[in-house]
Amino acid sequence: MAVPEVKALTFDVFGTVVNWRDSIAREAKAFLGPKGYDRDWHVFADNWRARYQPAMAKVRNGERPWAKLDDLHRENLVELLRETEVSGLSDGDIDYLNRAWHRLDGWPDTVEGLTRLKRKFILATLSNGNVAMMVNMAKHAGLPWDAILGAEVAHAYKPQPEAYDRTAAFLDLKPAQCMMVAAHNGDLLAARGRGFHTAFVSRPLEHGPNKTRDVRAEHDFDVIADSFIDLAAKLGC
Amino acid sequence: MAVPEVKALTFDVFGTVVNWRDSIAREAKAFLGPKGYDRDWHVFADNWRARYQPAMAKVRNGERPWAKLDDLHRENLVELLRETEVSGLSDGDIDYLNRAWHRLDGWPDTVEGLTRLKRKFILATLSNGNVAMMVNMAKHAGLPWDAILGAEVAHAYKPQPEAYDRTAAFLDLKPAQCMMVAAHNGDLLAARGRGFHTAFVSRPLEHGPNKTRDVRAEHDFDVIADSFIDLAAKLGC
Repeated sequence: MAVPEVKALTFDVFGTVVNWRDSIAREAKAFLGPKGYDRDWHVFADNWRARYQPAMAKVRNGERPWAKLDDLHRENLVELLRETEVSGLSDGDIDYLNRAWHRLDGWPDTVEGLTRLKRKFILATLSNGNVAMMVNMAKHAGLPWDAILGAEVAHAYKPQPEAYDRTAAFLDLKPAQCMMVAAHNGDLLAARGRGFHTAFVSRPLEHGPNKTRDVRAEHDFDVIADSFIDLAAKLGC
Repeated sequence: MAVPEVKALTFDVFGTVVNWRDSIAREAKAFLGPKGYDRDWHVFADNWRARYQPAMAKVRNGERPWAKLDDLHRENLVELLRETEVSGLSDGDIDYLNRAWHRLDGWPDTVEGLTRLKRKFILATLSNGNVAMMVNMAKHAGLPWDAILGAEVAHAYKPQPEAYDRTAAFLDLKPAQCMMVAAHNGDLLAARGRGFHTAFVSRPLEHGPNKTRDVRAEHDFDVIADSFIDLAAKLGC
């Protein structure tokens, strides 16, 4: 796959780079289990994640002012804990649990694939996660980013056009010099709409064994790969 | 030197991390020499750099709207070329020469020192350079940053308080959890004024053999080191 003009790969992170579902389930179990709570922790992770898009929607549509994802996650967590009948946590406990999103693990191919891709391309996050979340996650999971960009510095949540436009502008690149890498058809369509090249990487286990959305590339993206190692090979790294 | 609360080191870049003067002289000579120009290229570098603070001052004082450093550098270069009687360059030539600031080399201890410091701390740029400049320079010089922050994302040029405040905020750290690393007394005083810890790293050759400013630490900064390797040792890395 020859895309000679591409200088930077911009990455969706949740699901594409890291396995948020198993990581959040593990963190919740490790923190709440010893406090006497016994739940299905994967369902807990799914229910936390289910509040993600609705929370961002209120920022996107102007119903509320800008709020970074750590703050949205925390509000969602407080609701979820109430619904799940987990009580008695201190503010510090809730902060710690909220920062589980800073401690997500990569997929087995993530670090090797990124390390190969980094030889040839600028690797930047183009995630809805905020800067501190992305920086701490990179330290935790060994993600070798060249730049942490995306929602917080662009002040726009994907799939808003400004999230893509401003990320390319920070890199002083034309959109066509950027390739969006994601496991989600909608993210790639939005990026393509702004002039980015696109790479679909399938992550069939993102939502557990019963994933029904984004199981495969539904459009003719520039590259379709089944891991970051496969992506590196297809991009000649 | 025990500073247990420090989580992130934030770096001045020009002079502190990279040797801009020799790098710019080399780049100018390599590009303009073959076009028939014979100048003192270190003087050329000094004269380009001399326009740096006055150009930012106009942004700081509101005389002109925000402009990133690449754009200020380019305006300054156009003036310098006229003054230096270099003519006939295309826009593409000027762009290429302007991006010499993206191709600066580290000091001999830079990469080894940063690599050691990175084991223990978040390493972020807190430079007046813009994101693309910092990202490309890191690729060129092998600088292992965790995050590219500073002026462009903070929308403020050091020593404006917002440059320090917003950089700490992006990392979700209190100022006291950050340590500013710089070879310049003024930068460190401004950072300290915003609550940062401070580390002075002497770079006696920044302005060539005749440097008269910032030759040594003029205040009781938390750490005083003569290289990044010395800084790593003093911070227990």
